[in-house]
Amino acid sequence: MRLLNNITPMEENFAKWYQDVVVKGNLIAYSDVKGLMIFKPIAYGIWENIQKELNNLFAAEQIRNVYLPSLIPLAAIEKEQKHIAGFAPELATVTKVGTKKLEQELVLRPTSEVLFGPLFASEINSYNDLPLIYNQWASVIRWEKTTNPFLRNREFLWQEGHTAHANDKEAQTWALKMIKLYQNFVQKYLAMPTISGQKTEREKFSGAVNTYTIEAMMKDGKALQAGTSHFLGTNFAKPFNIMFKNKNNEREYVKQTSWGVSTRLIGGLIMTHGDNRGIIIPPRIAPYQIDILDLMGHKEPGVRQKAKQIGQKLAQEFRIRYDFSNKSLGQKAAQSEIEGTPLRIEIGKRDLATDQVLLVRRDTLTKTLVKVADLTAQVKIALTEIQANLLQKATEHLETNIVEVKTYEEFKKEIKKGKFVLVPFTGSEKDEAKIQTETLATARCILLNHQKPSSPCVITNESTNNYVIFARAY
Amino acid sequence: MRLLNNITPMEENFAKWYQDVVVKGNLIAYSDVKGLMIFKPIAYGIWENIQKELNNLFAAEQIRNVYLPSLIPLAAIEKEQKHIAGFAPELATVTKVGTKKLEQELVLRPTSEVLFGPLFASEINSYNDLPLIYNQWASVIRWEKTTNPFLRNREFLWQEGHTAHANDKEAQTWALKMIKLYQNFVQKYLAMPTISGQKTEREKFSGAVNTYTIEAMMKDGKALQAGTSHFLGTNFAKPFNIMFKNKNNEREYVKQTSWGVSTRLIGGLIMTHGDNRGIIIPPRIAPYQIDILDLMGHKEPGVRQKAKQIGQKLAQEFRIRYDFSNKSLGQKAAQSEIEGTPLRIEIGKRDLATDQVLLVRRDTLTKTLVKVADLTAQVKIALTEIQANLLQKATEHLETNIVEVKTYEEFKKEIKKGKFVLVPFTGSEKDEAKIQTETLATARCILLNHQKPSSPCVITNESTNNYVIFARAY
Repeated sequence: MRLLNNITPMEENFAKWYQDVVVKGNLIAYSDVKGLMIFKPIAYGIWENIQKELNNLFAAEQIRNVYLPSLIPLAAIEKEQKHIAGFAPELATVTKVGTKKLEQELVLRPTSEVLFGPLFASEINSYNDLPLIYNQWASVIRWEKTTNPFLRNREFLWQEGHTAHANDKEAQTWALKMIKLYQNFVQKYLAMPTISGQKTEREKFSGAVNTYTIEAMMKDGKALQAGTSHFLGTNFAKPFNIMFKNKNNEREYVKQTSWGVSTRLIGGLIMTHGDNRGIIIPPRIAPYQIDILDLMGHKEPGVRQKAKQIGQKLAQEFRIRYDFSNKSLGQKAAQSEIEGTPLRIEIGKRDLATDQVLLVRRDTLTKTLVKVADLTAQVKIALTEIQANLLQKATEHLETNIVEVKTYEEFKKEIKKGKFVLVPFTGSEKDEAKIQTETLATARCILLNHQKPSSPCVITNESTNNYVIFARAY
Repeated sequence: MRLLNNITPMEENFAKWYQDVVVKGNLIAYSDVKGLMIFKPIAYGIWENIQKELNNLFAAEQIRNVYLPSLIPLAAIEKEQKHIAGFAPELATVTKVGTKKLEQELVLRPTSEVLFGPLFASEINSYNDLPLIYNQWASVIRWEKTTNPFLRNREFLWQEGHTAHANDKEAQTWALKMIKLYQNFVQKYLAMPTISGQKTEREKFSGAVNTYTIEAMMKDGKALQAGTSHFLGTNFAKPFNIMFKNKNNEREYVKQTSWGVSTRLIGGLIMTHGDNRGIIIPPRIAPYQIDILDLMGHKEPGVRQKAKQIGQKLAQEFRIRYDFSNKSLGQKAAQSEIEGTPLRIEIGKRDLATDQVLLVRRDTLTKTLVKVADLTAQVKIALTEIQANLLQKATEHLETNIVEVKTYEEFKKEIKKGKFVLVPFTGSEKDEAKIQTETLATARCILLNHQKPSSPCVITNESTNNYVIFARAY
């Protein structure tokens, strides 16, 4: 174990910084297969907390969890041609069992619209059965060429919600409600501010009529799509024959949505909050909120005993972890910092007499001597402040790096500087492709509910109601 | 929806009864691929409660959760030849991505010893790193020929724990501790009594030195293996080179264990507690502990309002569900019974004046009029009684259906009657195979900590210390 964390500074090489912190921060281990990664306890612990909090929010919306198979018959996935076009080169396919060739090839799910199709068709008869609202926690496989921990794993964990409604309006409203739920959740728990809006035709999920998204800004200025919610219309209801009898006793197709967030969010929070000492995990979602470190505890039983006493008391309200190894206090502190625990408590022999300990904030590195009697109250205040501070800093970073432009020249200049560019835009898919070739930026989202731009489209020069955010993205 | 549940009586055809209740009780839906099944909300809800309670027990033992890839390179799985022999014909294999053939074939995990191998090898250096204790919640794929909901799904959900220790004794102690944890858990939460013991050579996990098991008795007298814990010795440490420096600074192999329970437990609780009206879910593990049904609530707003009031109060302490559909009370009650909700509350117009409701127990079908003011207290008592009653009945069933025999003639007679047969046994794997051919029974476990049998082995006639339970099994 090194005393110094030996992390590449983010200003020097952001990608290298990221690779360093996910490995040295004990989040990820690589497996023998490219793109397949091991979620170590801290990373999986963050995911478990995300699951727990989202499950609470989902339960309040009457969303029920189910589990569907991970394998899809090739024939089923080909039933909806448009969405499959997007996934075809990434589909991992089971062709044999043991030495026996399968009669029908099976694809590892890249998403499950076509698995929910037959289930909905069998469960829905009349308008009384609507809306039908399911969610699934699962792993999905997408065999991407370029891989990156959390951001582009070939296998990742996610939740995917699927609904069926009686009419377009209800389904659209639901899709918007879920993107709002995601935006609030990510802001409140992960301290990540996002911009929400609608995807352009070029960027939407190929199986959707339209896609809503939340887009976060990483510390290098790049965008990260942090959650999506799709209005599917009848795109899956028709090929899977999902129909219901309406109040006039006529059969019609249901209108559907799907929506999801994934372990990508873990990459997002690292690149939103991390610094050159490592990761910083927001307290509300941290597997461990407090690390308790003892100085020479293996030689000073009184110190170790006091540390345990303090820990037991704090454990009633907070998620705590001890480092009682034989390492030096400096080494323990460096490890706690790289792993991003929001608070640490240091206790040594001198503290026994004064009945106080050192409380250290991971975000500001502020050190405060705190009387043991005041510790619970001080910890509570500190955790609240850390959560608020992380959000405030991320919000400032987002707000100061969005730039409105009126010409394509300005657009190119600001993208090069790593900004989110807000631009009146009514261009075609072809225009977007050209912009991407020239600037590496893509349309992140069309803003909803905003004023009409005062200037025309930077590409077509036509008057437009559309404000679009462009940025380079993960 | 039928008024009558239309379930095949279990006395008539137990297998058909089981198929009826898992489908009509809304636990399972079949997918288009044989053996791949959909876990509907009630089944998945039971599994979520199992996860929650086991996670609490695991945390107390310092067990940390991780997530490893679902795909294993064929070369890795072949490194430990004995364990792979057991799985080879069941391995679903990915041979291509999109239209491109993979250079190395990837197998969908049937279990993850060979994935934990490299992780342990990279994380363990010295005795300070031991014990290393991980658990994973995951789906696994085993392409079995005969399939059966929950009991033999080709894809099922489970947890698999993996540990590394400094010596055999510690590892053996851990393996025994986990089987005891499972036995206590299954008894306390699922109200399922089990017999624990050690598997014979023929029945153990082929990768293990020895396997501990808990065996439950289903209502048809058949055994269900409900959880296993394996002492692996160095069977995986050697091929994966998992070594540590001991206190004398010498390198030696770690000693390992693995242990798991799966969604099989859901099948187990159905066949332990169910009756001819459907499933009965023990309150401690039930997704819904109380169904609240209103009589003509759609025509009597006062009734609906009162039902909601009662529900809101109860929801503070219990998991509740409403059935406010337009169906008759009889239909609603039948549906609640088939789905196994432990308690239901019926409320109609007449109850408004008397300020009371009807409380109905699923296990005994006892109906009691309860004053609304007493409801919380009465519900608490009833749920406790149901949990205890289910366990007591299952324990009586188990105890009265274990028969000790002294001869192979008796053995065959009692097996035919559907008993668990307790038998002095020191036979070989060949003897066990012969017994299975002649009686369909297999050795379920060798009892631990018992008196020496007073009679010799029923097959070899040799004196023996071994008491073995034989039974027909799922």
